[in-house]
Amino acid sequence: MKAEDRFVDALRALLPSGGSVRLGPGDDAALVDRETGPLAATTDLLVEGVDFLPGEDPERLGRRAAAVNLSDLAAMGAEPEFFLLSIGFDRGKGAEYPLAIARGAIARAGAFGARLIGGDLSEAPQTVVSVALWGKPAGAPLLRSGAAPGDAVFLSGHPGEAAAGLRLAQRVAAFGAQGSRPTPRFPELALEAERRLLAAYRDPVPRIALGAALSREGLATAAIDVSDGVGADAGRLARASGVRLVLERNALPFSPALLSFGAMEELDPLELLLSGGDDYELLFTASPAQAERLEERASAFDVPIARVGRVQRGGGAFLLDGQSERDIADLGHDHLERAS
Amino acid sequence: MKAEDRFVDALRALLPSGGSVRLGPGDDAALVDRETGPLAATTDLLVEGVDFLPGEDPERLGRRAAAVNLSDLAAMGAEPEFFLLSIGFDRGKGAEYPLAIARGAIARAGAFGARLIGGDLSEAPQTVVSVALWGKPAGAPLLRSGAAPGDAVFLSGHPGEAAAGLRLAQRVAAFGAQGSRPTPRFPELALEAERRLLAAYRDPVPRIALGAALSREGLATAAIDVSDGVGADAGRLARASGVRLVLERNALPFSPALLSFGAMEELDPLELLLSGGDDYELLFTASPAQAERLEERASAFDVPIARVGRVQRGGGAFLLDGQSERDIADLGHDHLERAS
Repeated sequence: MKAEDRFVDALRALLPSGGSVRLGPGDDAALVDRETGPLAATTDLLVEGVDFLPGEDPERLGRRAAAVNLSDLAAMGAEPEFFLLSIGFDRGKGAEYPLAIARGAIARAGAFGARLIGGDLSEAPQTVVSVALWGKPAGAPLLRSGAAPGDAVFLSGHPGEAAAGLRLAQRVAAFGAQGSRPTPRFPELALEAERRLLAAYRDPVPRIALGAALSREGLATAAIDVSDGVGADAGRLARASGVRLVLERNALPFSPALLSFGAMEELDPLELLLSGGDDYELLFTASPAQAERLEERASAFDVPIARVGRVQRGGGAFLLDGQSERDIADLGHDHLERAS
Repeated sequence: MKAEDRFVDALRALLPSGGSVRLGPGDDAALVDRETGPLAATTDLLVEGVDFLPGEDPERLGRRAAAVNLSDLAAMGAEPEFFLLSIGFDRGKGAEYPLAIARGAIARAGAFGARLIGGDLSEAPQTVVSVALWGKPAGAPLLRSGAAPGDAVFLSGHPGEAAAGLRLAQRVAAFGAQGSRPTPRFPELALEAERRLLAAYRDPVPRIALGAALSREGLATAAIDVSDGVGADAGRLARASGVRLVLERNALPFSPALLSFGAMEELDPLELLLSGGDDYELLFTASPAQAERLEERASAFDVPIARVGRVQRGGGAFLLDGQSERDIADLGHDHLERAS
């Protein structure tokens, strides 16, 4: 179990249960009952040099901070309403700097219906951005805990691309630091593929529409957003549901851009997908009847979905590759360990 | 105008107005209309070495982070319901460290009816704590903008004590660093006064009950919590209301502990009150009829209130001392300037 998950378990033990809190720390977002129906709420803290590259463009950073939180609501099937934004920064960066972060966050969240209502500023040695976002589940909230043996496992989009994009962004930053401007920067990668991978890291698209559709139409038994790699997040969903997830190597949705990047860097695209992190795609499970309906409805979603595995009795998350099964639940990002 | 206020003005200009957001950035908390009545929401970011002393005890830090946010809701007359907590910290501090912060925040917020529902953790070079808290106005929300000429100005508690407590805490920390344990540590200060001042800084009492009573019973025209000194916050209330606030030197509520501390340190207690910050008392205005009712009801509140001045036509915040008037609106803390 990851340090972050151990913390959540320890935190749960501190909290009184029941009452109007339906779901406390440990799912993608929290759910509370207010007078008329549930409210979903989430927060993420982004620290420079840990959660984003030093010197990141502030507007892009604001967009990303919003997107990370929007993705948590997407995984609950909730539609975002309002957000709060706090920024800690070195005032030597000037008064325009936090405004640029705010502009990015306002634009990104605004595209999904969420409005900035307040925030806070503080001096800080490095930039930190904290967003708290809330909204309303479109239908029954999607929890991590609803998967049952016999369900199918689905994945949206093309996980692994963000991890490839991060590596490209680091290379681009290194080029910039050296003052060199290679044209094209990556001869083995089509410009379109480069743009696609950079965008997957820098400006991920939260899957609000997909999550809301799954919730509204009752098309999933459980869901999580893939923030720390498909392996770790499959492990979390399995643990919350008390089941075993088996993903099939041959069913995973590798994009041509990711395959090209893997070839160029001599990196296995499978490892980027399983361990990469920062994708903000949805991993979800569906009963046989839901899975059938999902496959009929697939072309109506704004992102491709792929059936990648199945839910069994037991525990853990595994990758089936031919005859061999590999434990993938402990792969990938840990927000408390990645800086070590 | 302070840098923080200029930021809020610039931020407001970025936002669409109207719709379901009744009050965006710039008041103590935000107000949004959801299906059944308003929701008040606030957030604060605390950075080590800027907003709290390096090496602060984590449980005490958690209490303070909760209290700062509770105070924002108090100033709106709102009763807290739920909060989110994010912590950035150096993992070398160990797994118990963020749990201790969470314990402190849970205890402090729990005493006022607010429950932790979620949060986030990240690695960070120094500790940062972000809380987002929301609740429900007890009656008509108290805004900064409602003061009118002819109103009286009131202040709760004993502002200036927190600034004195901060100075004592710094001295206590310095004693600790030197390995010395003077007994008594401050011979010129009664132990009771020392404890009182340290507690005012370390563990401020958010004025939730007072704020809720003012809102529920319609006893105030405007309110703000005193986080950056009475001078700066009187200036903010005056600006939001488009009025002039005049406080009277002789009516200000100096506590015996603050007077003793001032004598010991050769510091003017008036300056601590006007410029000190971190008090989390309420500064509010009341019409003549409300003021009369307030003075009748005063003994029922859990904190003393003092009538300290009046609202006039014009702008700015001033201190009347005998015949001389002094501009006090630009005194005190600025969260963007204090570390410079």
